[in-house]
Amino acid sequence: MIPNDDTPHLVVDLDVLDRNLDRTAALARAKGLALRPHAKTHKCPEIARRQLDRGAVGLTVATVGEAEVFAAGGVADLFIAYPLWPVGPRAARLRALAERVALRVGADSVEAVDLLAPVLAGTGAELVVEVDSGQHRSGVRPDEVAGIAAAAGPAVAGAFTFPGHGYGPDRAGAAAAAEAAALAAVELAAPLRSGGSTPTLAHADAGVLTEVRPGVSVFNDAQQAELGSCGLADIALTAAGTVVSRTGQQVVLDAGSKVLGADQPAWVSGGGRLPDHPDARIVALSEHHATVRFPDGAPPPLRRGDIVRVAPNHVCAAVNLADELVVARDGEVVDRWVVAARGANT
Amino acid sequence: MIPNDDTPHLVVDLDVLDRNLDRTAALARAKGLALRPHAKTHKCPEIARRQLDRGAVGLTVATVGEAEVFAAGGVADLFIAYPLWPVGPRAARLRALAERVALRVGADSVEAVDLLAPVLAGTGAELVVEVDSGQHRSGVRPDEVAGIAAAAGPAVAGAFTFPGHGYGPDRAGAAAAAEAAALAAVELAAPLRSGGSTPTLAHADAGVLTEVRPGVSVFNDAQQAELGSCGLADIALTAAGTVVSRTGQQVVLDAGSKVLGADQPAWVSGGGRLPDHPDARIVALSEHHATVRFPDGAPPPLRRGDIVRVAPNHVCAAVNLADELVVARDGEVVDRWVVAARGANT
Repeated sequence: MIPNDDTPHLVVDLDVLDRNLDRTAALARAKGLALRPHAKTHKCPEIARRQLDRGAVGLTVATVGEAEVFAAGGVADLFIAYPLWPVGPRAARLRALAERVALRVGADSVEAVDLLAPVLAGTGAELVVEVDSGQHRSGVRPDEVAGIAAAAGPAVAGAFTFPGHGYGPDRAGAAAAAEAAALAAVELAAPLRSGGSTPTLAHADAGVLTEVRPGVSVFNDAQQAELGSCGLADIALTAAGTVVSRTGQQVVLDAGSKVLGADQPAWVSGGGRLPDHPDARIVALSEHHATVRFPDGAPPPLRRGDIVRVAPNHVCAAVNLADELVVARDGEVVDRWVVAARGANT
Repeated sequence: MIPNDDTPHLVVDLDVLDRNLDRTAALARAKGLALRPHAKTHKCPEIARRQLDRGAVGLTVATVGEAEVFAAGGVADLFIAYPLWPVGPRAARLRALAERVALRVGADSVEAVDLLAPVLAGTGAELVVEVDSGQHRSGVRPDEVAGIAAAAGPAVAGAFTFPGHGYGPDRAGAAAAAEAAALAAVELAAPLRSGGSTPTLAHADAGVLTEVRPGVSVFNDAQQAELGSCGLADIALTAAGTVVSRTGQQVVLDAGSKVLGADQPAWVSGGGRLPDHPDARIVALSEHHATVRFPDGAPPPLRRGDIVRVAPNHVCAAVNLADELVVARDGEVVDRWVVAARGANT
């Protein structure tokens, strides 16, 4: 599974990836929900293709730049699930995109709608109003949606929310219930009710939602494993790191935060996980060092020079640091995928 | 200072940068210490040139890949301050580098020295043994240095340490004292005693150290400001972000963790700082959202569409996410620097 490249680098296990893709597609299908996976996680047209081949209706992205990359990669239906502020060069980029693909764009204010309307006029692009279902980031109250939609005229597809407050132990069920309650309270004739995240996916209320947008489930990560959304064996993307130092119960790997990302919510057990050493913990993460502690007792089963797999806490952050993903199956490198939308933040 | 590019993007204030460069150079000069700044922070040959022009003896880097970029950019003296494990393609890359520039390489075990010796033989490259001065990451005890150096033969320059445990409120003085104690306890004829970090720089013990390797001080960041190593006005690099959403005392910016990085030690006040709004706090950071809270009382002084400057907590992480830095002076864009060593992790 680990190629002969210099470490650290990111490796995708193709069998696990395909299993994850199948599982997410089956879950949405069983619930009768349209699946529009969030491509910010993988940023790869090759993976987008695999998602569409399994029945995804289109992709979700976070930025105009990501949408441009996937449109160039042949994806014809895109939702920018973000309250865009289209001014400057971005306005012209957004219009060019709307003329090229079926496009939906988020908005959470009349002011944004007033800017978006002329940019998107005549293109067939639709607005989707963002509702806050409890994360208290962007989005409006359900009773404010109709007013924003009215300002937009007829080109409104419906409403969306992101139940991001489901990222925490034992929070997914309540967050999914809040998501359904918020979308159910929206008074809007336009039918789209889009929600979903990886932790809340299994709890998504098909009586209210019409569409789900999980991102991380394509790869999974240490965070999802510790939340119980997946097992360590379901993690498809890991960093290959070399043991460069060793003292007592501790080894240091060369896969640090510049490869794994630095996301570390208070409820995780460390700076990532070693799927092949579930009792080890990453007790410190610096830019080029992961300090790994093994339990007291037997000496660590790793020598200097050994290469190990490290699952990042938050896979979206790790992918966005890499230029390419090494793709492996049964221990052989079978492909290399360019992270085409890496850094596409604007 | 903020160009008309789409947000988010990183902007360097050239006047503040030059002031920071002057201050660090003056501090090292006043102490009689050789200055070898850590280039992992900026990853830009243009900034390396400005450091060398101010008297730096060479640069520090963390990886062979960073060394390759700066060697290609004309830097003739490089120290890879990392316990390298030179196998596979990296061994040949390291040798090519050693044949091209004056090179020093870190090591913290006899095993690594045994691998490095044939790779570097005949090139004039020198080893520097890493000592643990209290961070407990890589490095050995001072009394172990001589044994490792003996294994290497004559090509040993001395010893180095990184007092990373100085990253915490009121810890810099004690960490600098520990650094000096560890280096003073090294029994080695080779004279180099290299230490230093941005927080400990002002406390560096010139009676023991011969060289310092600060990285962050070139830009400074929110973390250094909250540690008291600098003021908010000394932060030379910020992300330009647009207000995309607003509710109550809260605004949301489009500069999230995919631009700022996600570093957030327990002792910082949030996900970064707004230098022009010192009373605001980034209470949540997601990939494309910074949720900013203003104190109760007056409404937030920012409207949707306003562009504001955001200082990342850890500037090294932010730079490593960007392809280029927009360089500004007195409100005008004067240059654009490619982040040439971005992602050079191997």
